[in-house]
Amino acid sequence: MNSERLAELLEQVARGTVSTGAAMERLRHFPVEQLDFARVDHLRELLQGYQEVVFCPGKTPAQVVAICEALAAASGSFLATRAGPETMVQLRVRFPAAAVNELAATVYLEPDPPRPLVGRGPVLIVSAGTSDLPVAEEAAVVAGAMGNQVERLYDVGVAGIHRLLQRKKALDEATVLIVVAGMDGALPSVVGGMVSAPVIAVPTSVGYGASFGGVAALLAMLNSCAAGVLVVNIDNGFGAAAAAARINRLPR
Amino acid sequence: MNSERLAELLEQVARGTVSTGAAMERLRHFPVEQLDFARVDHLRELLQGYQEVVFCPGKTPAQVVAICEALAAASGSFLATRAGPETMVQLRVRFPAAAVNELAATVYLEPDPPRPLVGRGPVLIVSAGTSDLPVAEEAAVVAGAMGNQVERLYDVGVAGIHRLLQRKKALDEATVLIVVAGMDGALPSVVGGMVSAPVIAVPTSVGYGASFGGVAALLAMLNSCAAGVLVVNIDNGFGAAAAAARINRLPR
Amino acid sequence: MNSERLAELLEQVARGTVSTGAAMERLRHFPVEQLDFARVDHLRELLQGYQEVVFCPGKTPAQVVAICEALAAASGSFLATRAGPETMVQLRVRFPAAAVNELAATVYLEPDPPRPLVGRGPVLIVSAGTSDLPVAEEAAVVAGAMGNQVERLYDVGVAGIHRLLQRKKALDEATVLIVVAGMDGALPSVVGGMVSAPVIAVPTSVGYGASFGGVAALLAMLNSCAAGVLVVNIDNGFGAAAAAARINRLPR
Amino acid sequence: MNSERLAELLEQVARGTVSTGAAMERLRHFPVEQLDFARVDHLRELLQGYQEVVFCPGKTPAQVVAICEALAAASGSFLATRAGPETMVQLRVRFPAAAVNELAATVYLEPDPPRPLVGRGPVLIVSAGTSDLPVAEEAAVVAGAMGNQVERLYDVGVAGIHRLLQRKKALDEATVLIVVAGMDGALPSVVGGMVSAPVIAVPTSVGYGASFGGVAALLAMLNSCAAGVLVVNIDNGFGAAAAAARINRLPR
Amino acid sequence: MNSERLAELLEQVARGTVSTGAAMERLRHFPVEQLDFARVDHLRELLQGYQEVVFCPGKTPAQVVAICEALAAASGSFLATRAGPETMVQLRVRFPAAAVNELAATVYLEPDPPRPLVGRGPVLIVSAGTSDLPVAEEAAVVAGAMGNQVERLYDVGVAGIHRLLQRKKALDEATVLIVVAGMDGALPSVVGGMVSAPVIAVPTSVGYGASFGGVAALLAMLNSCAAGVLVVNIDNGFGAAAAAARINRLPR
Amino acid sequence: MNSERLAELLEQVARGTVSTGAAMERLRHFPVEQLDFARVDHLRELLQGYQEVVFCPGKTPAQVVAICEALAAASGSFLATRAGPETMVQLRVRFPAAAVNELAATVYLEPDPPRPLVGRGPVLIVSAGTSDLPVAEEAAVVAGAMGNQVERLYDVGVAGIHRLLQRKKALDEATVLIVVAGMDGALPSVVGGMVSAPVIAVPTSVGYGASFGGVAALLAMLNSCAAGVLVVNIDNGFGAAAAAARINRLPR
Amino acid sequence: MNSERLAELLEQVARGTVSTGAAMERLRHFPVEQLDFARVDHLRELLQGYQEVVFCPGKTPAQVVAICEALAAASGSFLATRAGPETMVQLRVRFPAAAVNELAATVYLEPDPPRPLVGRGPVLIVSAGTSDLPVAEEAAVVAGAMGNQVERLYDVGVAGIHRLLQRKKALDEATVLIVVAGMDGALPSVVGGMVSAPVIAVPTSVGYGASFGGVAALLAMLNSCAAGVLVVNIDNGFGAAAAAARINRLPR
Amino acid sequence: MNSERLAELLEQVARGTVSTGAAMERLRHFPVEQLDFARVDHLRELLQGYQEVVFCPGKTPAQVVAICEALAAASGSFLATRAGPETMVQLRVRFPAAAVNELAATVYLEPDPPRPLVGRGPVLIVSAGTSDLPVAEEAAVVAGAMGNQVERLYDVGVAGIHRLLQRKKALDEATVLIVVAGMDGALPSVVGGMVSAPVIAVPTSVGYGASFGGVAALLAMLNSCAAGVLVVNIDNGFGAAAAAARINRLPR
Repeated sequence: MNSERLAELLEQVARGTVSTGAAMERLRHFPVEQLDFARVDHLRELLQGYQEVVFCPGKTPAQVVAICEALAAASGSFLATRAGPETMVQLRVRFPAAAVNELAATVYLEPDPPRPLVGRGPVLIVSAGTSDLPVAEEAAVVAGAMGNQVERLYDVGVAGIHRLLQRKKALDEATVLIVVAGMDGALPSVVGGMVSAPVIAVPTSVGYGASFGGVAALLAMLNSCAAGVLVVNIDNGFGAAAAAARINRLPR
Repeated sequence: MNSERLAELLEQVARGTVSTGAAMERLRHFPVEQLDFARVDHLRELLQGYQEVVFCPGKTPAQVVAICEALAAASGSFLATRAGPETMVQLRVRFPAAAVNELAATVYLEPDPPRPLVGRGPVLIVSAGTSDLPVAEEAAVVAGAMGNQVERLYDVGVAGIHRLLQRKKALDEATVLIVVAGMDGALPSVVGGMVSAPVIAVPTSVGYGASFGGVAALLAMLNSCAAGVLVVNIDNGFGAAAAAARINRLPR
Repeated sequence: MNSERLAELLEQVARGTVSTGAAMERLRHFPVEQLDFARVDHLRELLQGYQEVVFCPGKTPAQVVAICEALAAASGSFLATRAGPETMVQLRVRFPAAAVNELAATVYLEPDPPRPLVGRGPVLIVSAGTSDLPVAEEAAVVAGAMGNQVERLYDVGVAGIHRLLQRKKALDEATVLIVVAGMDGALPSVVGGMVSAPVIAVPTSVGYGASFGGVAALLAMLNSCAAGVLVVNIDNGFGAAAAAARINRLPR
Repeated sequence: MNSERLAELLEQVARGTVSTGAAMERLRHFPVEQLDFARVDHLRELLQGYQEVVFCPGKTPAQVVAICEALAAASGSFLATRAGPETMVQLRVRFPAAAVNELAATVYLEPDPPRPLVGRGPVLIVSAGTSDLPVAEEAAVVAGAMGNQVERLYDVGVAGIHRLLQRKKALDEATVLIVVAGMDGALPSVVGGMVSAPVIAVPTSVGYGASFGGVAALLAMLNSCAAGVLVVNIDNGFGAAAAAARINRLPR
Repeated sequence: MNSERLAELLEQVARGTVSTGAAMERLRHFPVEQLDFARVDHLRELLQGYQEVVFCPGKTPAQVVAICEALAAASGSFLATRAGPETMVQLRVRFPAAAVNELAATVYLEPDPPRPLVGRGPVLIVSAGTSDLPVAEEAAVVAGAMGNQVERLYDVGVAGIHRLLQRKKALDEATVLIVVAGMDGALPSVVGGMVSAPVIAVPTSVGYGASFGGVAALLAMLNSCAAGVLVVNIDNGFGAAAAAARINRLPR
Repeated sequence: MNSERLAELLEQVARGTVSTGAAMERLRHFPVEQLDFARVDHLRELLQGYQEVVFCPGKTPAQVVAICEALAAASGSFLATRAGPETMVQLRVRFPAAAVNELAATVYLEPDPPRPLVGRGPVLIVSAGTSDLPVAEEAAVVAGAMGNQVERLYDVGVAGIHRLLQRKKALDEATVLIVVAGMDGALPSVVGGMVSAPVIAVPTSVGYGASFGGVAALLAMLNSCAAGVLVVNIDNGFGAAAAAARINRLPR
Repeated sequence: MNSERLAELLEQVARGTVSTGAAMERLRHFPVEQLDFARVDHLRELLQGYQEVVFCPGKTPAQVVAICEALAAASGSFLATRAGPETMVQLRVRFPAAAVNELAATVYLEPDPPRPLVGRGPVLIVSAGTSDLPVAEEAAVVAGAMGNQVERLYDVGVAGIHRLLQRKKALDEATVLIVVAGMDGALPSVVGGMVSAPVIAVPTSVGYGASFGGVAALLAMLNSCAAGVLVVNIDNGFGAAAAAARINRLPR
Repeated sequence: MNSERLAELLEQVARGTVSTGAAMERLRHFPVEQLDFARVDHLRELLQGYQEVVFCPGKTPAQVVAICEALAAASGSFLATRAGPETMVQLRVRFPAAAVNELAATVYLEPDPPRPLVGRGPVLIVSAGTSDLPVAEEAAVVAGAMGNQVERLYDVGVAGIHRLLQRKKALDEATVLIVVAGMDGALPSVVGGMVSAPVIAVPTSVGYGASFGGVAALLAMLNSCAAGVLVVNIDNGFGAAAAAARINRLPR
């Protein structure tokens, strides 16, 4: 029962063409339909930049292309994540204007004119090693597509702590930090101790043996000795970016 | 090497009483000491409200009282967390003005005058069941002590989904949400789909059998089907509050 | 917004004392309140026998007594589960008419007159060893309090398979079977192959070493080679009984 | 020792051609053989709809076809589950009348005339996301083949709770519900709180990172905060359908 | 239906006082009862020495004494395992003739005259460290009570490999070896490579940290590089002894 | 230092051509060499039937053929286990007299004349489901190659308990039982309660979801409620056969 | 067979009073006894400082005192680790000269005159938080008792990275570093990147929730992004010190 | 801010062309830059032999060749680890002088003239089985490339303990031992008890079933009953070699 139908029903009650008992009965059977219109504005705001995201695993290249065509037709934009090589090729052919990020495995068709920046400051993506780059780049691309200014600070793992310390200025200027690390997952603890801004830690599945596909890094981040470090699932660059967008668009 | 000593050294160089070579040698041996003054302002800002926190486990009641006396003398305030019954009794006797929250196991001596609110909106603590209240209250007390306006929405577990839906207005008005749940850890997923603000999920060790001391809830939260849900460690009400404070004090 | 208030609102709309726009606004702000009256009948049916259940862990004996007094005053009945020894003593003193089952750690005050049997046949509780009895008895007491006829078949572990086979008649006559076992968790597989009725498997934390507090039994039950065996959490006699009640009260 | 042979033996005893001692000796050596005829009726009832199920993994397409030919010759029906693409192709060629469900990876040759509905009401398959559909469809096909009326309610994950609430009527009308979800496994908790009918939760291996191939969802379901939710193994749509059939065919 | 009743039934058939149809009906309803007499001899043999074993955990000292009194009255013997200090004291008072082994936490009342040795050679208990002695002694006492000759070879952990090698003669003379070890669980691999007799490995919960209560030793033993090493549950001295008894009494 | 060299050294001492001091020095530097001759007889006995076993994984077909050629030349026999399809083909071509067991993935060249039976009775291989057959057959082939009489009892899973009970005679006649099961791993518990002979349980990796590649079955077997069940590693048919050989060749 | 007995045997062979055959037979039966004298010197060197260590858990205070009296009588020294409060009291009374370290839970009776320093440089104990001190102090006391110069650098967790950097000189001067950390276990990675000396990482069980008693820190250390970090078991300060002693006494 | 720029700044202060206040400000903004020159010497020392190491997984053969060309041009040397077959082929073609170790999956271009030995004694690589050789060889090649003398002692698993004991001399002569083992991981415990030198244990992923990809061996090594055994990650031959290099180059 959408907004129009509820208004119509109330009008009928007001006009006396529907009894209050009958109105109650109809409301009883569709008790939550009207939630929709109540939530739609907030949802749209929330989902702005999300709604055109296509998660590719489990879909054939042809299926992805078809979905993207529908999205492009409707909104002039789409973002495909975790695209395989063949999917990237087919999307590149079909949408020459789309930006393909091979490292991130993303294809992004930016709306024209571009979506305005909505955040209040830069989202800084920090990563430990070169193997963490695919996840870091996924976070970067998604955060950008959601309207955030994105900065990058890569290859600053804690085993070479001086490289991180040399970039303290970049850390201080960020509004939100997404810190990506595999193996020992130590980087967010160090970063969390250096800044007062929110820190979102993303464990990656980089490593072997007792890294257990990123579990070692995940546990380290959940047990960070820096107070207030927040964690998302292993390799979940998308989730980190979505969380950063929630934070960065905080109503003033 | 603190700020004063660096200034003094530079003065000596300027006066010629210390050669540049000798100055370099001294700087070389203490290469990071001057970090302190560079970071102290930010650190103070970050730690405002943190520095007087006493984590009680592993300390005797007498030790806790002694530490709190020192903190109260220095800053007029302290916050003791995870205090045992005897520790609460002794702190209550020693500091009649302190607020004892038995559910949260906290004792808080508020500064006089109280610390001004620093956040830009309310931090809403949402919890699923009555057994989750100790963690929820710890988050509430800590967030309050860090200068945030705190609101509570308790006992809205997903098995009675209507109770949560009835309180959508409170959810919408929050700047940051801390969602506390044990057992199936499902509440943050539902809340995360209803709001666009940042959601911090706190798994609790409530449950038995295959809850594994909160691991079931933790995993559910890390795998939330609502995009951008952030997670802290099991029972970590303190960490959730600290993260909320980082978010809520975002520079305008 | 409960049923009465919605009726009143609609009356006001019908009388013209509230405009349809104002009515929509009020509905918009309380979008799910009316769920309550829609669900209340079903909920009451579902919760019949549940609503007076008090889960004792984490509550002092005095707290339990106070809650039970309130429940007894309101409905003439209560069921306390996982009661400690002192709680059992205090409830026995306060409610001499209540039935104390020390093995199950339950105290049950039956309504007067007793609740009629609601199920369509017996719920049979089957258990493997004497150590499983506390969980089996919890299931039995709870199922009984929810209005089910309860039968028991105890000490029929698979290492003495003949004892189980000798009781095939009892197995065949059950409408629902709750099969309780620790250690190797093998009993539900054998029972599941002998009957066509629903089988609810309850792993118990009985065992040591690599039983991991019931995980071994839980995994065995989830991997039962008998098709259609259903599983609840470790030691969850209450949950098994609640599920049996759902099944046994299936509308005809 | 089947029924005929036992009857013959007893006849021989009655005629005096076999002594009671010799008869006892023969019974002693085959002590359980006569179980067969005692159980065969119930077993047939139980297994009706099961006996023609072919679990394809580990079998070559040719082997599956051969088994299905034998089943079809014997009973006019078969159901192949988890069939690979090549197996589906070959079965489609050999049995043009069979129904191929590519999503469920099943091939079903319905008996002619169709098996009558045996259940007392609809089995409702509820699923959270599109990635859960293969498991949901397997449950649907198997439940149907076992003689149950099957209804579907798909794509009602808890992150969009309003979509689920809008379909409360369908939930209320189901006799048994099979709720399929991956990732956070939260859906059965919400559904379990909305209905009084039996709820069978099926975790799926959908997800990545700390979903551990469905373990996160499995644990969430075992710890459901809705009382009486029942659980089967990860991805076990077949088992859920078999359990639903046990429940739905409860003797009246 | 025991042996006598079956004989009686067959007699009735032979006499014609019961028809074969009626006899079949009666057999049909008790399809497995006659298993008993078929199995009783073997069971008695198997359980000889087992049947008087009382597993004390979960029983009060008074309960244990009562059970032991019943066993002593019936068979002149009992064996209580995992007895707590108070239970040991009370059994010692009540049965002055019983042998109390404090290390093993066992109390054994030997039959008079003693049970004859039934095995074909010595069962050798080998243990790695002094902390493993309780489990080793439990195995020793139980194996002895089951009629086996028991030898001991203690404190021969692999970190001092020469001590083990010096005792090769004792290893060679054993018919069955029970090898008890915690921590790294390495001893069975070394022993298994030195002898051709059966080796039963018992992991103990000795250790801390990543020993996980004996899991480290258990896994090492399951992965022994010596072919044909057999494993029982953690701390399961009883099970190892029972297995050794099965092996040692092999029919010639 | 082998037996001959030690004898020679002692002769030299006896002849006076080597001083006792020099002899001690040589013994000191080779302190364990003489272990060899002391152990060689037992080792030979132990390894009879083992020494020609080739574990194929990690070796190319050509490498396996070369090793088998060397073994066949030296001893007239070899046994290749876990052979891939191509390896089986090449061995079949090169050794037409060898027996290829495709289910077990073994190729066995029997010595001519055949090795005599060394055990004192049959080793019975019991298995639960058809998917367990590869492991069961590996155990059967290896046990046979080690000189044991091998019997098979397949497809007697506990969900059809009557099939197992009908074969009690075969169970009773076995000297050693190897019980192979995946999924719930329940079969060894039932078998262990029916016989007094040694029972070796082999978990298989059959199953999916929460079977965790055989861990569920492994845990069930370690926690068997039948006393004295022995366990080997997952899928370790070889190890079970080697253990059975140790038991079956017990000196009389 | 010790050195003297072997010499005697060889003398007998040289004198002809024992035949070479008889000598071989005796050597055959005691094949490894002579290992003792060959290894004793190295073993003594290795165990210097170890042999008087008493691991207290599982021993009563009286037992510990008795063992320590024996050790003190024999060698003038002992070291008791993981001593409980009562054990510490009793040892203090009995041995007033012994040093009691309550944090480390150790009691050390130094030999008189003190054991000389055997290492080639300082062993530096680095720890992250105050909760790690018991493990750090155990390592310090044990390393000292084994003859190493011990330095301490405490409370330099990575969340306050500047405190660690300020002490780089101390890090550079250490010959071996023992780095103790709980929670995220990040400290060894940072330290390992700052020094070229050997780094031994000790995870502690400090933390809660998903720290799993130190497993999170253990995994982080095993996956350290600094090359060549070595790890010991959780809370194993003793083992870290023993390893440091092995390294520090490297033959020149 | 490198060394030159700091010197220049201090000169400017000395000359009075920059005020002390301005100098402090500049130092404040670049607080850690000068760390570089302070650490570079130690870093170079530490990284000698490391800096040319290329970890191949995740890189195409062409990428590896390009990196190696750059390294060879800069330093005349490189070491590629975990190279795939095609990468090995391409490197062999491009660098005919490089040493390809197929077992270790390494390609090493030695500098000309060769790097001098820097350690103080041999690093001995000990391995249990032939399947452990790839990891053992990786350790050997890396240790050699870092300037250590490398010795090998292979195929001395504990199930044939005499082979290890016969080589005690080689064990005694090693300065550092790297002990590589899969399956039960028992070898380091035995070796650790035989030598006083540092022992680095490397678990390998060799095994199946409950070896869990090397976790069984890892846990056994962490719980070694030999004091002071050090552990690295599963299959981490590189890390073991790096640690050995740290130990072997200890300043005298």
